Amino acid sequence: MKSVGVDIGGMSVKIGLVENGKILQKRVIKTEKNCELFVKYLTEEINLLLSENNLKIQDISGIGIGCPGSISVKTGVIEFAGNLDWTRFALVDEMSKTLKTKYRLVNDANAATFGEVKYGVAKGYSNVIMFTLGTGVGGGIIIDNKLYEGNEDKAGEVGHTLLVLNGEQCTCGRKGCIEAYVSASALIRDTKREMLKNPQSKMWEYAENDIEKVNGRTAFECEKIGDESAKKVVDDYIMYLSEAMMDYFNIFRPEAFVLGGGVSGEGKNLTDRIDKYCAKWAYGFKGTPNVKILTATFGNDAGIIGAAALLEE
Amino acid sequence: MKSVGVDIGGMSVKIGLVENGKILQKRVIKTEKNCELFVKYLTEEINLLLSENNLKIQDISGIGIGCPGSISVKTGVIEFAGNLDWTRFALVDEMSKTLKTKYRLVNDANAATFGEVKYGVAKGYSNVIMFTLGTGVGGGIIIDNKLYEGNEDKAGEVGHTLLVLNGEQCTCGRKGCIEAYVSASALIRDTKREMLKNPQSKMWEYAENDIEKVNGRTAFECEKIGDESAKKVVDDYIMYLSEAMMDYFNIFRPEAFVLGGGVSGEGKNLTDRIDKYCAKWAYGFKGTPNVKILTATFGNDAGIIGAAALLEE
Repeated sequence: MKSVGVDIGGMSVKIGLVENGKILQKRVIKTEKNCELFVKYLTEEINLLLSENNLKIQDISGIGIGCPGSISVKTGVIEFAGNLDWTRFALVDEMSKTLKTKYRLVNDANAATFGEVKYGVAKGYSNVIMFTLGTGVGGGIIIDNKLYEGNEDKAGEVGHTLLVLNGEQCTCGRKGCIEAYVSASALIRDTKREMLKNPQSKMWEYAENDIEKVNGRTAFECEKIGDESAKKVVDDYIMYLSEAMMDYFNIFRPEAFVLGGGVSGEGKNLTDRIDKYCAKWAYGFKGTPNVKILTATFGNDAGIIGAAALLEE
Repeated sequence: MKSVGVDIGGMSVKIGLVENGKILQKRVIKTEKNCELFVKYLTEEINLLLSENNLKIQDISGIGIGCPGSISVKTGVIEFAGNLDWTRFALVDEMSKTLKTKYRLVNDANAATFGEVKYGVAKGYSNVIMFTLGTGVGGGIIIDNKLYEGNEDKAGEVGHTLLVLNGEQCTCGRKGCIEAYVSASALIRDTKREMLKNPQSKMWEYAENDIEKVNGRTAFECEKIGDESAKKVVDDYIMYLSEAMMDYFNIFRPEAFVLGGGVSGEGKNLTDRIDKYCAKWAYGFKGTPNVKILTATFGNDAGIIGAAALLEE
């Protein structure tokens, strides 16, 4: 059966008509921060998507929505979404006034994780952890093929466990969280620091001598042309990420671990090195099975596909 | 229905006839490291326990066994138990030759966790994490009232996630794991270090001027009589433990967190201070529910009760 997947982002909202993990049609609108207008525009867009496909609301299995921030899944309320200035926004109740169907509102990284397990790279694995390496580090926990959501659906803050006690300041208030070392933002910070220490680094040329042009690829690209400073940044990043992942290996012993978000675009260059690093330590407990390290496949569509797939959970 | 719970330790094996989380009768034998003799003695003891209670093997729901080390639950094999020098010991198969019943062989800390959730201090909570603060840090993960065991039953190594990257050497091979900071062994190490720095500390008198007499209570007791060095050791310990627990709050958002093992005997003096420390940071994500911090109640009987309870899972 077809369903609608919605991926709410800080800048845009993506809406897709989805069937069996495939997007049949996609629409994108600007994110409206006013709650009342947001509901109006989103409802209009879903109605358009349905009518263009000769569907009525009762022809779909429901609407799945992924949203950044802290979500109460059972009540369909966005408790807090910092980037959107939303607090206690009862999105499902509001949308149900005009579009009566089944809803599933979850955290966006949780939706992406579920999508990769249901239809993507981690299909066939029952226990999976995902990190999305973007501005922050989101992710999700799949246990026995289901999203683990915890008390009041507030579990899965996988970026907020310590790597370094009293280390780098994290956005959550604590110091030394994984997010403060392995997010794309942290990688960019560390790249800049290394460049400032090494005026001879080829990374300066790559960034057109403008430190503000540094991005998550700068170190990875310059390492390939033999820049030693870039190699140091990448080696440290691999070490941080591997150590963070090993913590989750030891807690969950998942069958698979998925890396998503911008940095995961490095693909095998990233996963092979993590595998190599982890081989030394992660399997120090005798007789523990390997964890398959994968990179996400759905990219920008993960949110839509995952949100829609939640209707089939 | 009655069942038998077995708790295998490095020195002794405790065997109990259990009903609804209550031990009706208990026997203790010395741990025999020779596998063949171990099976023989344990089988004899269980038969004695049954006959003294006028029970036949078919009158009990089964035998639950908790054993330290790495266990393959589905096959009933002790893959590796370092303290006992056992490798790939097919305990369930061997016992089944003479005692035909249902078996459940799990890691001992997992058994204790399950017991506390089923009949002990965490009864009524669905998602629970437990740390056992002993020589090492064991524990368990309860999700939806069930033990989470992961791929090949090798999950739940909750003591082996980082607190300090490249920190204190851990027994698992990595550096900086939680276990290397919050186990009783780590507390004793830190107490000794502080004493060596402070020859005036009252902890010397408490330990009868013999540093080998330091134990997990030394710092806690001397803090109560106003010793500043002892207070520093305890404050640091509370900080390490709280930070470690907050990682698990963020991952699982459990309803309850149980502390077991020797150090947990400090009771409210421990939990109140952890609560206070965590209040500042753990709930930094808006709208997240508090985690109830509890101390284990079954003490040395947790293994027997938990192992027996697993037959009712």
